[in-house]
Amino acid sequence: MSKPQVLFIGEPNRDLPEFHEFSAQFECIHYKITSKETLLEDLQGKLSKVVAIYGSWLGFHPVGGLTEDIVQALPDSLKLVTSCSVGLDGWGSEQLAKRGIKLYNCPSLGAEQVADLVLYHTLQSFRYFKVFEDNFRESGHTVKTRSLLQSASLDKQTGKVVLNSTDSSDYAFGHRLGDSLPILTPFGKNAVVVGFGSIGSRIAKRLHAIGMNISYVKRTRLSSEQEAQLLFPVKYYASLKEAAPVADLVVLSLPGTSETENLYNKEIIDLVPHRSRVINVGRGTIVNEDDLLAGLRSGKLSFAGLDVYAKEPAVSRELIERQDVILTPHIGSSTVENFNDTSIFCLRNIQDVILYGKEGLSRVN
Amino acid sequence: MSKPQVLFIGEPNRDLPEFHEFSAQFECIHYKITSKETLLEDLQGKLSKVVAIYGSWLGFHPVGGLTEDIVQALPDSLKLVTSCSVGLDGWGSEQLAKRGIKLYNCPSLGAEQVADLVLYHTLQSFRYFKVFEDNFRESGHTVKTRSLLQSASLDKQTGKVVLNSTDSSDYAFGHRLGDSLPILTPFGKNAVVVGFGSIGSRIAKRLHAIGMNISYVKRTRLSSEQEAQLLFPVKYYASLKEAAPVADLVVLSLPGTSETENLYNKEIIDLVPHRSRVINVGRGTIVNEDDLLAGLRSGKLSFAGLDVYAKEPAVSRELIERQDVILTPHIGSSTVENFNDTSIFCLRNIQDVILYGKEGLSRVN
Repeated sequence: MSKPQVLFIGEPNRDLPEFHEFSAQFECIHYKITSKETLLEDLQGKLSKVVAIYGSWLGFHPVGGLTEDIVQALPDSLKLVTSCSVGLDGWGSEQLAKRGIKLYNCPSLGAEQVADLVLYHTLQSFRYFKVFEDNFRESGHTVKTRSLLQSASLDKQTGKVVLNSTDSSDYAFGHRLGDSLPILTPFGKNAVVVGFGSIGSRIAKRLHAIGMNISYVKRTRLSSEQEAQLLFPVKYYASLKEAAPVADLVVLSLPGTSETENLYNKEIIDLVPHRSRVINVGRGTIVNEDDLLAGLRSGKLSFAGLDVYAKEPAVSRELIERQDVILTPHIGSSTVENFNDTSIFCLRNIQDVILYGKEGLSRVN
Repeated sequence: MSKPQVLFIGEPNRDLPEFHEFSAQFECIHYKITSKETLLEDLQGKLSKVVAIYGSWLGFHPVGGLTEDIVQALPDSLKLVTSCSVGLDGWGSEQLAKRGIKLYNCPSLGAEQVADLVLYHTLQSFRYFKVFEDNFRESGHTVKTRSLLQSASLDKQTGKVVLNSTDSSDYAFGHRLGDSLPILTPFGKNAVVVGFGSIGSRIAKRLHAIGMNISYVKRTRLSSEQEAQLLFPVKYYASLKEAAPVADLVVLSLPGTSETENLYNKEIIDLVPHRSRVINVGRGTIVNEDDLLAGLRSGKLSFAGLDVYAKEPAVSRELIERQDVILTPHIGSSTVENFNDTSIFCLRNIQDVILYGKEGLSRVN
């Protein structure tokens, strides 16, 4: 008997023992989408016997997602589609269901990693390590850099550090970027974590470890037992608006939905304390980038740390130019461990359904 | 009665309420050292009635420290010298004692801050956020950057990322810098913290919070009660040499003494696991920088995070050029809070001794 065929859209880690096992059980077809036309043709031709589709993070996005016409062209042999993503946009959940094809997502297996990224942005938001390092790589002299930056100023309009003096002979401790921007410890400052699932609670654990006071915003408050299990005190707010006045730092860890769109905007920025900071690791749509930039220009905000962007995969030129902003290219959970764990999870969904006749681990439609 | 005179070598924060109180009690002479000759003259002249000296971090270093000739020139009225530093080098401890002048240091009030710096370097050591950001600021495109870096390589010899392809159209998850350098989570990896006082234990707390297994090296093992009070498991090693074979990460948090000089050297680097990382926030002399560079060039080490340098205040050009090294300009504890707390501590030493006839808080000679 020939082995059942599985279509791979995007690469798993082929070195994994789990993949070797899988390859012995299935015929793996590694396919690269070039155009929708070719894809539709191939689904009726050389891909017409596949029983499962393994979709990497990008999935069918290059051809606009699993749209109605593609779903209709999927072969009758197809039992399931399993995606590496948590989010369901672009995976044609309902259309697949209508055709009796099961869709599986992958729960965030990278929560620890995303929380580490937030911690990184948080440390930057108080200590401005990158500004110090960039100058230090030019000056090659510890005291010179501290001295130059202590007499410098941060131009709020552009977000750029302007060196005001070439005299770097004075000793400086390194606790200021000019007169207007103090370097502070996060210890004792207030963090408001918006979204408090597996990622949010791990973010809170880390921010607590560096001495921050933790508040969280979530539609439904945790039970007192759940709060106690965190092992550190937290304060609950029903909305970001209510929490904003205490937020030395706002961390956005939310999915991109119509409810979260534009959540961090001028109204919130007007409410936060002077020199507040914001970090977004959810979706780019959550932050109104125009309002964010206005907040930085006015000095109301002293820092933004972004891993996701309004017009992703592009990022606005104005953000790129600023030194009071830290930008990472949507790599919150990007580690080898997470990549592999996610691959293995998807392979198991396929084995579970096709080989063992079970329901799979994470069906969503 | 005229107020007792206090000589300030280096600036306190004059806006502090504690300084206002102090100014009402003492005549504060803010003095800038220009040359040893002038200083010696002034100590016999306009500074000849000072009862205390407040010395900032730099202190008398510009004229070679509180050398024998300066100590001899200090006025008979002088009762104490209080320094913002922890370390005693350059403060003429013994010579001052012979003249009956008390010397006070300042215990590290910035332990939390130094531990935050270590956490920052640790996150960089596993995730290479700076490499991603630097490329991202050029490409302006999240997927392009991840794709370019995934097909790139890190030249071990120079420590520079070499882009191998201009084709950035393929999706990439961002979990590799080329084939040879995986982006890993610190979760579950082993950290060896060398030096385990107030700073070391705070470092350990943070590294535990990001999921690392903690080992520590200290001359004397903590009591089992002290270990239990940490609230996370630790493993003790009597020497770095014994701990090295398990060290995915070595953190050096030690004073610069003859015992710690050259502690992290070729012998240790030969013992650590492949792709081990090292962070030094103690003193530059602890790391043999030639051996460190050789370790990076050979690929045995995958990262170094440095806040202190062998030839400080200068840093070697070769380190500056490398992207597998993160360099901060000795700003481990540089925050406004620490600057102020240290100032206040020194002012209290002076008040304690001069106004209240007590022993002061931290006499060292």
